[in-house]
Amino acid sequence: MMTALCKARPGPGAELVDMPVPNLGPRDILIKVRAASICGTDLHIYSWDPWAQGRVHPPLVFGHEFCGDVVAVGSDVTRVPLGSYVAAESHVVCGECYECRHGMAHICRYVQILGVDRPGAFAEYVAIPEQNAWLTDRRFPPEIATVQEPMGNAVHSAAVAPIAGANVAIFGMGPIGLFTVPIARASGAARIIVVEPSEDRRRLATRMGADVVLDPVTDDVVRRIREETGGEGADVLLEMSGNAAAIRQGLEALRFGGHASLLGIPSRPVELDLADGVIFKGATVMGIAGRKLWDTWYQTRGYLESGMDLSPIITHKLPLSEYERAFDLVASGRSGKVVLLPTG
Amino acid sequence: MMTALCKARPGPGAELVDMPVPNLGPRDILIKVRAASICGTDLHIYSWDPWAQGRVHPPLVFGHEFCGDVVAVGSDVTRVPLGSYVAAESHVVCGECYECRHGMAHICRYVQILGVDRPGAFAEYVAIPEQNAWLTDRRFPPEIATVQEPMGNAVHSAAVAPIAGANVAIFGMGPIGLFTVPIARASGAARIIVVEPSEDRRRLATRMGADVVLDPVTDDVVRRIREETGGEGADVLLEMSGNAAAIRQGLEALRFGGHASLLGIPSRPVELDLADGVIFKGATVMGIAGRKLWDTWYQTRGYLESGMDLSPIITHKLPLSEYERAFDLVASGRSGKVVLLPTG
Amino acid sequence: MMTALCKARPGPGAELVDMPVPNLGPRDILIKVRAASICGTDLHIYSWDPWAQGRVHPPLVFGHEFCGDVVAVGSDVTRVPLGSYVAAESHVVCGECYECRHGMAHICRYVQILGVDRPGAFAEYVAIPEQNAWLTDRRFPPEIATVQEPMGNAVHSAAVAPIAGANVAIFGMGPIGLFTVPIARASGAARIIVVEPSEDRRRLATRMGADVVLDPVTDDVVRRIREETGGEGADVLLEMSGNAAAIRQGLEALRFGGHASLLGIPSRPVELDLADGVIFKGATVMGIAGRKLWDTWYQTRGYLESGMDLSPIITHKLPLSEYERAFDLVASGRSGKVVLLPTG
Amino acid sequence: MMTALCKARPGPGAELVDMPVPNLGPRDILIKVRAASICGTDLHIYSWDPWAQGRVHPPLVFGHEFCGDVVAVGSDVTRVPLGSYVAAESHVVCGECYECRHGMAHICRYVQILGVDRPGAFAEYVAIPEQNAWLTDRRFPPEIATVQEPMGNAVHSAAVAPIAGANVAIFGMGPIGLFTVPIARASGAARIIVVEPSEDRRRLATRMGADVVLDPVTDDVVRRIREETGGEGADVLLEMSGNAAAIRQGLEALRFGGHASLLGIPSRPVELDLADGVIFKGATVMGIAGRKLWDTWYQTRGYLESGMDLSPIITHKLPLSEYERAFDLVASGRSGKVVLLPTG
Repeated sequence: MMTALCKARPGPGAELVDMPVPNLGPRDILIKVRAASICGTDLHIYSWDPWAQGRVHPPLVFGHEFCGDVVAVGSDVTRVPLGSYVAAESHVVCGECYECRHGMAHICRYVQILGVDRPGAFAEYVAIPEQNAWLTDRRFPPEIATVQEPMGNAVHSAAVAPIAGANVAIFGMGPIGLFTVPIARASGAARIIVVEPSEDRRRLATRMGADVVLDPVTDDVVRRIREETGGEGADVLLEMSGNAAAIRQGLEALRFGGHASLLGIPSRPVELDLADGVIFKGATVMGIAGRKLWDTWYQTRGYLESGMDLSPIITHKLPLSEYERAFDLVASGRSGKVVLLPTG
Repeated sequence: MMTALCKARPGPGAELVDMPVPNLGPRDILIKVRAASICGTDLHIYSWDPWAQGRVHPPLVFGHEFCGDVVAVGSDVTRVPLGSYVAAESHVVCGECYECRHGMAHICRYVQILGVDRPGAFAEYVAIPEQNAWLTDRRFPPEIATVQEPMGNAVHSAAVAPIAGANVAIFGMGPIGLFTVPIARASGAARIIVVEPSEDRRRLATRMGADVVLDPVTDDVVRRIREETGGEGADVLLEMSGNAAAIRQGLEALRFGGHASLLGIPSRPVELDLADGVIFKGATVMGIAGRKLWDTWYQTRGYLESGMDLSPIITHKLPLSEYERAFDLVASGRSGKVVLLPTG
Repeated sequence: MMTALCKARPGPGAELVDMPVPNLGPRDILIKVRAASICGTDLHIYSWDPWAQGRVHPPLVFGHEFCGDVVAVGSDVTRVPLGSYVAAESHVVCGECYECRHGMAHICRYVQILGVDRPGAFAEYVAIPEQNAWLTDRRFPPEIATVQEPMGNAVHSAAVAPIAGANVAIFGMGPIGLFTVPIARASGAARIIVVEPSEDRRRLATRMGADVVLDPVTDDVVRRIREETGGEGADVLLEMSGNAAAIRQGLEALRFGGHASLLGIPSRPVELDLADGVIFKGATVMGIAGRKLWDTWYQTRGYLESGMDLSPIITHKLPLSEYERAFDLVASGRSGKVVLLPTG
Repeated sequence: MMTALCKARPGPGAELVDMPVPNLGPRDILIKVRAASICGTDLHIYSWDPWAQGRVHPPLVFGHEFCGDVVAVGSDVTRVPLGSYVAAESHVVCGECYECRHGMAHICRYVQILGVDRPGAFAEYVAIPEQNAWLTDRRFPPEIATVQEPMGNAVHSAAVAPIAGANVAIFGMGPIGLFTVPIARASGAARIIVVEPSEDRRRLATRMGADVVLDPVTDDVVRRIREETGGEGADVLLEMSGNAAAIRQGLEALRFGGHASLLGIPSRPVELDLADGVIFKGATVMGIAGRKLWDTWYQTRGYLESGMDLSPIITHKLPLSEYERAFDLVASGRSGKVVLLPTG
């Protein structure tokens, strides 16, 4: 038996339950969870918003960012040794659809997401397909190993953009936004300008290396970005907020011929000035979903191995039993990454 | 003296006037206009819509797609011999701004457009900077030479998209949209699906090689595109209409990981489902403005030299004096390219 | 029992033998071979050259380009229905190495090649992993379906090059070189210049659409390519011959900033003028191995579906029993593709 | 009158002469030279090697890396104000050839190089076309401003390679090689492995941030690179030495699917194992010439503005009168960048 955080029924909240340790299929591995970090998606499930109501089928153990030790392996497992220290790609992909067979498994149309479509990692144990495991060096502590997955989103957003020598505007300093700051720096950004309403998160952004920190409540964001870029506008926009006004401001502040990576997910349709914001400007706008399999994971590992320090972004570590406080912190919009520790 | 079609004062219409042949600066060339084709922009100026009211300062000779013979050259002209047969890039670029010095002169922020910001080509003679001339082989008749400029927009839209082996959906069969059909074919498109409300233009699209022709008034466009692509959706969207509903349908019908080139200019902001239409889909959306200098012109020449037959798209050739009929044809939304012949 | 062409022992030649139909693993499928085409690699094995001596372990049924009907499936097969008409990717990849997990399975370091490292397709039946099957429309006859694999090499060589509007020089008109001619045309090549010593193959190249056909024995190849490209040199080089002199001439005839795809495999080190041929020229040189999984297969299918006619390249179809004549034809250096028909 | 270092006649050496300050054409600017750094090309001219004998026509003031103050401007100069602090692109390009009109002016076929084909900068004053000036912020001292030009070669070599998260092997720690070390680091390199025979230069490489430093005389370079990359080989090769053995080792140590930028210029043809080193490996090999106009200059500026410290690479600053000692230092193969100061 094990303890797990379960969305037991439709409605807000979740509860700690005792339940059997998951069974393993022949190609699955069982992981004793050392750390499981909370994603915005988990907050959607916890607070039971419309998206969660339409997608999630309780009862469900949720949580999809994690790391831990491999304590059992199925009969056909060949690549992941017992005792390995692993993080995990949360997208279980089909491997057979057009996207999977075309180098785009990250947007597999038959994807099943851990902790959303199948049991997740806010638990002492989680079972995942062997193919989803990412072998991790033990020099990286659990709170870092677990955030390789959301950091991968940031890496993916930055990797498709021409950042070397560029002025980069980043909207939204949630954890993924915060990860993009040192990644943009490591990718050769000339100047990093961030936009974020929370003072706590602006402070974190500065600590992570942002050159200019703007508050959209009090700053004229578009004008300020132009000023900070010699009147040109930003070369690259990393839109990590999903806020409609931010998307519009970001495209307006983008330089002619600039690149925009959109990762933040707007909750409803957004009215855009495509003529001036995209077409006349000759802009490139890319939607970013998940992590490229496995290019993004290798790049993420490269950044960690080169010494990138993400520890300031991990603002809270709590035992699984304090999940209510953990979700309150995430809901506050002021924290960095909040990490749960299911097995101490 | 020469005859020219002049937007003489604010308000709809234009008039034929006699005026002096343009003077030449030291780096300019004088062209006797053999053919000048009508662009949608010219219709905006002719009908004096809000865009034209805000941008154009009468009196102005308009028209910016043309070809002709070089009959005089300025004292510092070195590259364009007297007697040459030339078409022209309509964007007179500054050569010194960030975009110009960065391989993006097509989006020069200080661009002056012939026939919009300075005198144009609906006239017996036009003067342009030497650098804007494109030497053209005389085997291409005037009505083809003149459309290299708008064809370049189509080439640019297609060249940035991964068309080889792809299913391509094209919205809008105005002349630029029609050009994209043989260009997509020549670029290796597996299947070309076009969407266009005018029956005449759908017929032209078929003649130019479209495999599937849809009418947005009567067809369920998104469903039909999915059917025609084995359920995948289009690999590539070429949006040449500027119609808001078309843009939404096009993005909805785009395959996961697909590419969209947006060239048609919506007249007002467009509400888009960025979450499902771009972000989750991992789509790439590129705004297309003008022609890359001079890559696009070389590619355009390559297509023409390889034998691409554009003549069906040239539906009308008229003397300059019949400009009223010519603009009525363009305004009808049913013609292909309409070409004026200022000098017979 | 079945009939198969077997390299029974070290040394030149091969022999028809009766042997058991292959067993199936749980993820394998059994294919009744309708057509199996002969690759240069097969000739190496047949003639037992030094490469074959170092790589192949007799007894071995060889042959790796084929198509046929799926007549049995293993217990875990899910994607390929019984009765399907399939071609096959000849590279059985590990799926777990860095390359496989990085979008580069075509250069998997643990690749096993059908008919080289494991039993192949010059037989009535062949067993392959389900993942290697490529479902094919029955409108394509066996002699076309089988050549999707080598055609994929040509597609891969062309797809990485900027061919739209370009002058393309192709060295070597063996079957893969011949495939590149219509592929380059379909990709928008302005002018296709081929270089090939065999008169028969030059004639095939003309038939497939080459604009200029040169004989390296009698023509001054570099000078002629420059003449045919207005003095610029070729924009794109597709080197399909593996001949050292051809590689040198191709790089010399390449335009400044041009692109070279090298697919032909030189049998020994090649002395190159890197300074003038690559560095000062700012050239891009790409090595091409195999087919991208599965991007190349989709593109190949796209070309076939768009109506590309490859039938002139299939110069010979013979029953499996006439294998000696078939290999003599391949060895002559004058044939197009030679196809064996193991099951009539 | 001014003092200048002149290659007065064919043969080794050079001499300081008094000569008139250069005249200005209408689009030229006159620069009072604050610093002029010595390039390997200058050593070729100084020592009068076969390349110099074939290209240079004495008498000639040489030197092409420099910075200074604009003290006079021609009548048609519009962009560069009198009194500006500028560095310079050394390639005077024609602006009209295919390459220039195709985004590849850095490989203009009619290029004239300052200090090679026309008078250079080892002098108190130099005249250059306005278009070649690069406005520089005065916060960068002359010895840094002057090396923007060779640093641009390093930026160009790195910018075309996928360095983020990659293991990068760099051969040759001359000044341009040394520049690539912090550039690769700023571009997100996971691990930087350098190969260089001079102990002094290896020490500089370590100081600039190299992770692993190999001596080709005593280390088994290929084996060591594999060891340092988990057996994979280097993801990226930056070949800055021009040494034939280094090129061969670099390609051998390159990972499957890797990228090689070749900048170092071999003095004679190089024998390469194209089959194993490029083709089977699916490698991309790019020749690097000069700096992209002006993308590379903007990127270079971005790196400098982000705080990259190049000062350790500037090992020597000498008055112009000590040119003999300066050239001896360059010839030693042990120095970093040697900078001459023509006007104190």
